[in-house]
Amino acid sequence: MAKWIWKFGDFERYHGLKLHERRTEFGDWMPVIWKLYAPEPVVQFYKRVTTENGGIFRLRTTGTSVVQIFGLPNDVPTYGENTAEIPLPAGTMEVRIRVMNYHSFPSIYVDGVIESDESWVVDDTTIDRNPVGCWDALNDIEQSPEEFPFVYEPLQWVSKEPVKGGILYDFGKETFCKLSISNLSGDKVHVRLGESKPEALAEKWCTIEYFDKKVVDGTYKIPTSAFRYIWIDDPNACVQADYEYLPLPYKASFQCGEEVVDWVWKTAAYTFHLNTREFFLDGIKRDRWVWSGDAYQSQFVNHYLFFDQEVEKRTLILLGGGLPFKQHMNTIMDYTFYWVMGVYDYYLTFGDLDFIRQIYPQVCAVMKYCLSRRDPDGFMRGKPGDWIFIDWAEMDKTGALLGEQVLFARALQYYGEICKLVGVDGTQYAEDAVKLQKQIIEQYYMPEKGAFMDSYESGAKNITRHNNILAYLFLPCSQEQKDAIYKNVLCNDAVPPITTPYFKFYENLAYCEAGDMKSLEKCIREYYGAMKAHGATSLYEQFDPTQEGDEHLAMYGKPYLKSLCHAWSASPIYLLGRYRMGVENTGVAYNTFRVKPMLGDLPPFTGTVPVPGGEVRVSVSETEVEVLATVPGGTLEVAGATYPLEAGVSKKVSYRI
Amino acid sequence: MAKWIWKFGDFERYHGLKLHERRTEFGDWMPVIWKLYAPEPVVQFYKRVTTENGGIFRLRTTGTSVVQIFGLPNDVPTYGENTAEIPLPAGTMEVRIRVMNYHSFPSIYVDGVIESDESWVVDDTTIDRNPVGCWDALNDIEQSPEEFPFVYEPLQWVSKEPVKGGILYDFGKETFCKLSISNLSGDKVHVRLGESKPEALAEKWCTIEYFDKKVVDGTYKIPTSAFRYIWIDDPNACVQADYEYLPLPYKASFQCGEEVVDWVWKTAAYTFHLNTREFFLDGIKRDRWVWSGDAYQSQFVNHYLFFDQEVEKRTLILLGGGLPFKQHMNTIMDYTFYWVMGVYDYYLTFGDLDFIRQIYPQVCAVMKYCLSRRDPDGFMRGKPGDWIFIDWAEMDKTGALLGEQVLFARALQYYGEICKLVGVDGTQYAEDAVKLQKQIIEQYYMPEKGAFMDSYESGAKNITRHNNILAYLFLPCSQEQKDAIYKNVLCNDAVPPITTPYFKFYENLAYCEAGDMKSLEKCIREYYGAMKAHGATSLYEQFDPTQEGDEHLAMYGKPYLKSLCHAWSASPIYLLGRYRMGVENTGVAYNTFRVKPMLGDLPPFTGTVPVPGGEVRVSVSETEVEVLATVPGGTLEVAGATYPLEAGVSKKVSYRI
Repeated sequence: MAKWIWKFGDFERYHGLKLHERRTEFGDWMPVIWKLYAPEPVVQFYKRVTTENGGIFRLRTTGTSVVQIFGLPNDVPTYGENTAEIPLPAGTMEVRIRVMNYHSFPSIYVDGVIESDESWVVDDTTIDRNPVGCWDALNDIEQSPEEFPFVYEPLQWVSKEPVKGGILYDFGKETFCKLSISNLSGDKVHVRLGESKPEALAEKWCTIEYFDKKVVDGTYKIPTSAFRYIWIDDPNACVQADYEYLPLPYKASFQCGEEVVDWVWKTAAYTFHLNTREFFLDGIKRDRWVWSGDAYQSQFVNHYLFFDQEVEKRTLILLGGGLPFKQHMNTIMDYTFYWVMGVYDYYLTFGDLDFIRQIYPQVCAVMKYCLSRRDPDGFMRGKPGDWIFIDWAEMDKTGALLGEQVLFARALQYYGEICKLVGVDGTQYAEDAVKLQKQIIEQYYMPEKGAFMDSYESGAKNITRHNNILAYLFLPCSQEQKDAIYKNVLCNDAVPPITTPYFKFYENLAYCEAGDMKSLEKCIREYYGAMKAHGATSLYEQFDPTQEGDEHLAMYGKPYLKSLCHAWSASPIYLLGRYRMGVENTGVAYNTFRVKPMLGDLPPFTGTVPVPGGEVRVSVSETEVEVLATVPGGTLEVAGATYPLEAGVSKKVSYRI
Repeated sequence: MAKWIWKFGDFERYHGLKLHERRTEFGDWMPVIWKLYAPEPVVQFYKRVTTENGGIFRLRTTGTSVVQIFGLPNDVPTYGENTAEIPLPAGTMEVRIRVMNYHSFPSIYVDGVIESDESWVVDDTTIDRNPVGCWDALNDIEQSPEEFPFVYEPLQWVSKEPVKGGILYDFGKETFCKLSISNLSGDKVHVRLGESKPEALAEKWCTIEYFDKKVVDGTYKIPTSAFRYIWIDDPNACVQADYEYLPLPYKASFQCGEEVVDWVWKTAAYTFHLNTREFFLDGIKRDRWVWSGDAYQSQFVNHYLFFDQEVEKRTLILLGGGLPFKQHMNTIMDYTFYWVMGVYDYYLTFGDLDFIRQIYPQVCAVMKYCLSRRDPDGFMRGKPGDWIFIDWAEMDKTGALLGEQVLFARALQYYGEICKLVGVDGTQYAEDAVKLQKQIIEQYYMPEKGAFMDSYESGAKNITRHNNILAYLFLPCSQEQKDAIYKNVLCNDAVPPITTPYFKFYENLAYCEAGDMKSLEKCIREYYGAMKAHGATSLYEQFDPTQEGDEHLAMYGKPYLKSLCHAWSASPIYLLGRYRMGVENTGVAYNTFRVKPMLGDLPPFTGTVPVPGGEVRVSVSETEVEVLATVPGGTLEVAGATYPLEAGVSKKVSYRI
């Protein structure tokens, strides 16, 4: 199948630039705050082919191009884009197509006797030839890869009311549409979009506002934006909204009959759907950017909802950046480590070695950058320009912060694994990781307190949930140490609570790893459930249960700046699928997998989890578990006993022994 | 003075992309064949300023932007592009302006209480802050640096005649215009541009041809192109030509009364003027690209004609490329070395240390690339992807070619000097250069033949002018060796002649260095003079005196592909100025200079050579020399005697002692 092809990474870079240029705040542009890389302006595509009789092919490109065919004894036929049908001579030929484009990016579509596909290679004219990038969805010569292949559907508001001399439209739920506002009588128009009603009506600090905008032919158009409410100053305006989305089918389900829990799952799925686009976004209103720490969590949710390989690849490629690599991803040190972990998790989930080979040089550049910034003691401390994040929370970030070392060690370990996958000796990294982990435990663990300290350099020996959770999840602690921090930190109300859904993910992950489903379920019911009570139609980026009413809309000191549709809040989908339903990839790309539902206090539920080429259906009642996997490789584990799963055959066992 | 500022290099990269995308050949695009780098898409500008009362400033940008002002205790005022007048608080403030633009490049213009100029720094958001790039000519807020500031003047054809159903227009001489062809009656038009009449009338292989092009409102427009003749198929067409040029005044002159010689000087100046644009072009019709070897020679001509620092900087920046540096410039190994030499020559000529500091990181990247490709014996051999050029000529390129080693040693030597200029220890490079030069002489010089061989690895011991000339010019040969190769190679008709004006430059340079003005003058009269006889109005890229008539128009096996206006043919301007008039910079930026006219057999002549802030006027008759330098620092040297030159005072001495 012929498809558009480009230099690996250029599609992502270009759409990444488009995406990161688009944010506005309070009516002004808000360009991205980190380094982005431009696509390669001049590339050359190569295809070696042997045909008995030759034939003809046609070519479409983005950019200016020239075709040369090598293989004849005394001639190199050369064609420009004015040649509709290019003849390929018989025999063994090398077709070279050079394309220049600094407006978007160079790409080509070839069909006929030869077709553009994964078998082509490309370079930046420097004989540094590598397999091309492509995407099966872009297989139409008329559909340029410069336009991201979103799907559009007209969407109708559900109610409207006259307010403040204009009209307020309510679309009933959070959405993402491009807008055409017509029938305008004035020369200028004033439009406010709101994820909440107060935001759409706010005189000041409405995040996405179009003030005093010039009307052309009675119409004003607004690029695709997030909103539930629209306020327009002209009462006679007609609003045409086109919902823009990536047509990924939900491949998972969950239903337990308990309204709040089912609402959280469905709302998480919708939230995640809205944010799964060119890339995994953080939020569709704000920042509408691609953050690595957020994307890492999105990978987990994706594995248990869409199981879409392409958006994950695109996100990893964009975040990986380019050369020279000279800044932590999104400027955040921890986010660089999550990316390396995400690359390896991608491999384990999809078994896609081709991608690993393509991204490998960038993994090396990233890790080389990290290793060059190690201190003599092996730890990573923030250098000028580094943001040491972990979470929005008070912690002792003096010197080497525990969380950074834990993630660094994990990244190092996975780097060793990635090297192995591409046939490079990564033993040293694996060994360094083990050594580093040992050193971390020695340096940060306080046996007398049964907990890890954030940092040892200030002498404060401060304890936070965050750093202990990361240690719990990603360090090879002894069972004794794990039990201690679980008890002394995770289950200790005196340790300040996690306040972001972002870190709730890791906290819940720790609960789940400890087999404590009830803590997860409590969090779903109370923390996420409270958003329902607040009238949410998608999950918020942050939620402080001590706040009330419109206080929930504020962020960064601005009354409506909070993102009310944030991907990192969708983690219950992963946690319920992976632990409560218990579906776990135990091999590579689920060549082996385990289904081990864990007990909690939800009512009987049924659910589905995607696996490559099929799905696993799980029903759990008070007394028994029923599992059907449509693919082979599965094992059911209930109450300590294991049962092989036959593809397509339902297995029912009692878990009350 | 406020001016547009950008990240150093981005202006050149952007205009380099525009330039290298524009070439067409036989009606099709011909994208460039080497790696180009895109501008940085996101940058941040910084200005630290202290004011007593603050004030306001206005901002214009290319791209989306946001302004933040740091320095207040509890507030970071933030402004978007909708703020016409931005208030700067009193006290010490840091103004940060982030700009994103992947369509062209990010740049800003600020005026008011603060102004954008050389004092600003900029980074790619990675705290890798460096002085901005700017150009005094771009000091108008309304004149975006996205448009290169060319000047346009209407130009009228001098004659026209009906040919082949259309009209042939003759503009009288080579020119470079954008065209608007109006009053067209058909839906389509057919236009051919020709540097020669046969090209404009050719049924096939006209280089710049617009066939069957759609006419809009009776008009067809053609972007700026090189031509003398235009043929249009519609006899009623009206042609409007706008001459596009860079308004650099000629700062030199030469007149000897001998028609051919004066014609060569004037035609070389016009040829060079046409090719001196965004950058030093090779030719205005073809390739219309920026080649390092050509540009190196253009620097010499520029020093003796325009003395324009800016075009030289722009060219060096563009050719220097970006990071990662992974291909020889224009893919040619020798061209990389010429670039390093050109950077140092630029410094010596203009004394511009600021630029050296700005380009230094790229010099390091380039030299690091070269050094990483050295063979264990210290020589540079072609690796896959390298083009070992030197000249279009038969030579033995087996293994390590002499010319490459000679230029490499020179580049290494200058690299050491450049390091010294920026305060970095480059001793090792200087020492390596000396060692390498010694090794080259030992390896390639054949005392028994009194000549250098091209290469020692084939055993052929082949001798060419090219390699001996480079050795003569750039190696520390003994006087005995120099005399030998001068006699055995340069003055030996049995050694095949140089056929390109490109290498004629080095050959003539060797003649001049040897004090042999007559060989230079002979070349000017006969080789360049023959172009006049052929009807040239600008100097050709190549000229084979054995050819006749339209044979002179052919190139690469195509009948009209030759560039009839090629910068590298302008070298007589340099050679006459530097040697015949004898004006030589002996210090840095002519803080000291020598005027040492050399004897030849031209009739009495007068000429002018530019120097920083002034000029040197030289008149030479059969008996005496008269020199006036408008600046201090000069010494006149005639017949072995030296005389100090006083600024503004004419000095006349007899050279017939």
